[in-house]
Amino acid sequence: MARRGLLFVLSSPSGAGKTTLARRLLDAPGLGLTLSVSATTRPQRPAEVDGRDYHFVSAGRFSEMVERRELLEHADVFGNRYGTPRAPVERWLAEGRDVLFDVDWQGAAQLRASPLGADVASVFILPPSLSELNRRLIARNQDAPETVARRMAKARDEISHCPDYDYVVVNDDLDASETTLRAVLAAERARRARLTGLEDFLKGLD
Amino acid sequence: MARRGLLFVLSSPSGAGKTTLARRLLDAPGLGLTLSVSATTRPQRPAEVDGRDYHFVSAGRFSEMVERRELLEHADVFGNRYGTPRAPVERWLAEGRDVLFDVDWQGAAQLRASPLGADVASVFILPPSLSELNRRLIARNQDAPETVARRMAKARDEISHCPDYDYVVVNDDLDASETTLRAVLAAERARRARLTGLEDFLKGLD
Repeated sequence: MARRGLLFVLSSPSGAGKTTLARRLLDAPGLGLTLSVSATTRPQRPAEVDGRDYHFVSAGRFSEMVERRELLEHADVFGNRYGTPRAPVERWLAEGRDVLFDVDWQGAAQLRASPLGADVASVFILPPSLSELNRRLIARNQDAPETVARRMAKARDEISHCPDYDYVVVNDDLDASETTLRAVLAAERARRARLTGLEDFLKGLD
Repeated sequence: MARRGLLFVLSSPSGAGKTTLARRLLDAPGLGLTLSVSATTRPQRPAEVDGRDYHFVSAGRFSEMVERRELLEHADVFGNRYGTPRAPVERWLAEGRDVLFDVDWQGAAQLRASPLGADVASVFILPPSLSELNRRLIARNQDAPETVARRMAKARDEISHCPDYDYVVVNDDLDASETTLRAVLAAERARRARLTGLEDFLKGLD
């Protein structure tokens, strides 16, 4: 049955597995999810690809995007700016495609408050525990100790917004978490409120 | 994470495949659904087992159950009475088990309006089309033509309540519909509002 596209929003503290899970969903054949690539002013890391991981833009260009209302949402994190370009999202939704957002609580809150808010389904991915999260951040071995401490403080703040989300997935096991995320996506696609074809079916009753 | 049990409510017109789908879910190993067996005053059919398909009771006993508030919901359909015994449902939910309800729109509406309404997830199962439903009702070959006509009129009435449901599944294919129902169940189990363990997790942030 015909339906509107949905905004599938994933948030989590850094280290909870969100990026890995998002990648699995995007790479799954036939799942039909399109990633919304954020714009950011933060420096590009060696492993990152411009246009795939982020659109890397200057502070001046970012301010211009804000002023011209080219962003669906934007937020400042550790002095860097992040935002969601509006035009591709609106085009994909109009085509009935579902769009995946990998954003923090501020981004999720702004998407919910946007004109597209009714089509948001949001999932918060939790680590099994805070001590496990700390262990994972240290095991990454790419950040300095003060960065780990700062990320843990940010993680606590991020997790405190978890009650604002529609779903919560505790990421004990990547396969199990992926299965749950796929279930949430399938269920949200069957939500009555999204089915634009229902009215026509009901008209057939007369 | 610890959570409250949920009321998984399935409705559909007769002939849309609901009973087959409910049976598949109940028989699935590890899915952990318990069927709420309705009480009814209608006569027992040859293939039916008392206590499995329905609790077959007299009109007097049914009235007594209504008066003593022993039913979560009850409705009259074609002059027969149907109702959901309250005690077993409350016991199962307290144990954190999920309960499946195979009820019509009146039953679903009363469950939503009951004190357990916040824990209801409701799914309406549609036939692919009304003409296909008519074909299926005739193919059953167990009902007289006037019964088929009456069931079609009742089906139109039942379908007209489909907008009251959280989810809509068009039953083109039993396997695909079963997959969607399993996804809805898994997603509803991950709903943040059901997670009683979340508060304790968040307390750990302090």
